[in-house]
Amino acid sequence: MNILVTLNSNYIKPLKVMLKSLFLNNAEDKFCIYVMHSRLSDDEVADIQNFVAANGSSSKIIRIDDKVFENAPVIFHYPREMYYRLLAFKFLPPELDRILYLDPDILVLNPVKELYYTDMGDYLYAAAYHDVISIKEINRLRLNPYEIEAYYNSGVLLINLELQRELVDENLIFEFVEKNKAKLIMPDQDVLNALYSKKIKSLDEKLYNYDSRYYGIYKLKSKWDMDMVINKTVFLHFCGKKKPWKKDYSGRFHALYKHYEKLALK
Amino acid sequence: MNILVTLNSNYIKPLKVMLKSLFLNNAEDKFCIYVMHSRLSDDEVADIQNFVAANGSSSKIIRIDDKVFENAPVIFHYPREMYYRLLAFKFLPPELDRILYLDPDILVLNPVKELYYTDMGDYLYAAAYHDVISIKEINRLRLNPYEIEAYYNSGVLLINLELQRELVDENLIFEFVEKNKAKLIMPDQDVLNALYSKKIKSLDEKLYNYDSRYYGIYKLKSKWDMDMVINKTVFLHFCGKKKPWKKDYSGRFHALYKHYEKLALK
Repeated sequence: MNILVTLNSNYIKPLKVMLKSLFLNNAEDKFCIYVMHSRLSDDEVADIQNFVAANGSSSKIIRIDDKVFENAPVIFHYPREMYYRLLAFKFLPPELDRILYLDPDILVLNPVKELYYTDMGDYLYAAAYHDVISIKEINRLRLNPYEIEAYYNSGVLLINLELQRELVDENLIFEFVEKNKAKLIMPDQDVLNALYSKKIKSLDEKLYNYDSRYYGIYKLKSKWDMDMVINKTVFLHFCGKKKPWKKDYSGRFHALYKHYEKLALK
Repeated sequence: MNILVTLNSNYIKPLKVMLKSLFLNNAEDKFCIYVMHSRLSDDEVADIQNFVAANGSSSKIIRIDDKVFENAPVIFHYPREMYYRLLAFKFLPPELDRILYLDPDILVLNPVKELYYTDMGDYLYAAAYHDVISIKEINRLRLNPYEIEAYYNSGVLLINLELQRELVDENLIFEFVEKNKAKLIMPDQDVLNALYSKKIKSLDEKLYNYDSRYYGIYKLKSKWDMDMVINKTVFLHFCGKKKPWKKDYSGRFHALYKHYEKLALK
């Protein structure tokens, strides 16, 4: 299975933790990890490659020259890396038909196979949205007049590369960003939702993009308790500003995260 | 290393979780698990033995006939099993010099070797007490006139069997229980503290008997944060009435417990 990650130097440790959890909970499967970056050092790249190899999978490093996005609009502090997911097909081998993008602030708790081989039909992407009313409404208003049915989270994104090659036009994306600069908050996610909302296959967030901050809500609304998270949830996503590898973190999955961190980094 | 556990049918699942965490975090060591019980069925015994064998260690089952403690006083709902730890030497092979007793409501997070081979000197036991002022005071008053310096928790108990054979007199224990029936709350622990307090080597509770309910206190008083728990704490003890395998549980180590439970029982 092909996994896509993008990162800068600050995310090497979280990336390893995410990958370690992926490998441990998918022990029967092999992965090829595509690492897209623009400014990792050679040592950092070697470190990641050794880590993946030591865990029995392979990796391919794709360095993207800054010049590639020379003409793309950049929004204040958001880096060009935001385009990597949306234009993944441009940098990946032409024979790949699909790839699963994963944020580094994720723990993989169960096998990903079922999601990976899901029928994509005419969908460009598969993703989940967080069904918290306030979030949905705010984003619907913010991205008006673009019609969005739900505001998908781009942290777990199954990409139909064959269709991306056919349908995605980088100029349309650049135009959109240029025109909406002022109101974009999470640029890559905003683009995904404004331009492709109807081409996204909706996944169950409890399985494929469980927001670590909403344990109480999932439990109340869907009876998705700790047993279900540990035994069923595939991607536990540490959304938001507070991250479990930071000193000030305190959350319900803190101990579990530190456990995987120990396994990954010791 | 020799590990002692005692249980009835209700604790088979927690026992397996505890043992799984012991095996996983002590992968280089072999254990012999001594299981003392009085009324497990043959199937239950076989189940435990298979589990231990599948994890590469060995087990010895010691069935203790109820008649052995026929003359021992029994306190309301407390079973005779409470004597197993205090009189372990009576049922174990004479060649064993020490054994580590562990409650089943524990997760073993790091290697136990350093504790196991600690110098016992003239101490009968090694244990930790929970340094929460209210607990200490209440127990000191309750067990008066027996002088206790600290109220040790008997959930993790390293037993000096050689010395136990020499020094421990079961009749003294029975007399003590008979005389103090009315005020004993946790009988085995009360006996341990009232009769042997000065023969107990004091262990660091943060390492060897971390009470899962007091994360905030440990962090505040000793800067023992989540990193320290995961990387240093050996025994994480789910003290108190609320247990992490129960449906109504909610605590800081819930996800971690369920993680080990999945590994143990799947």
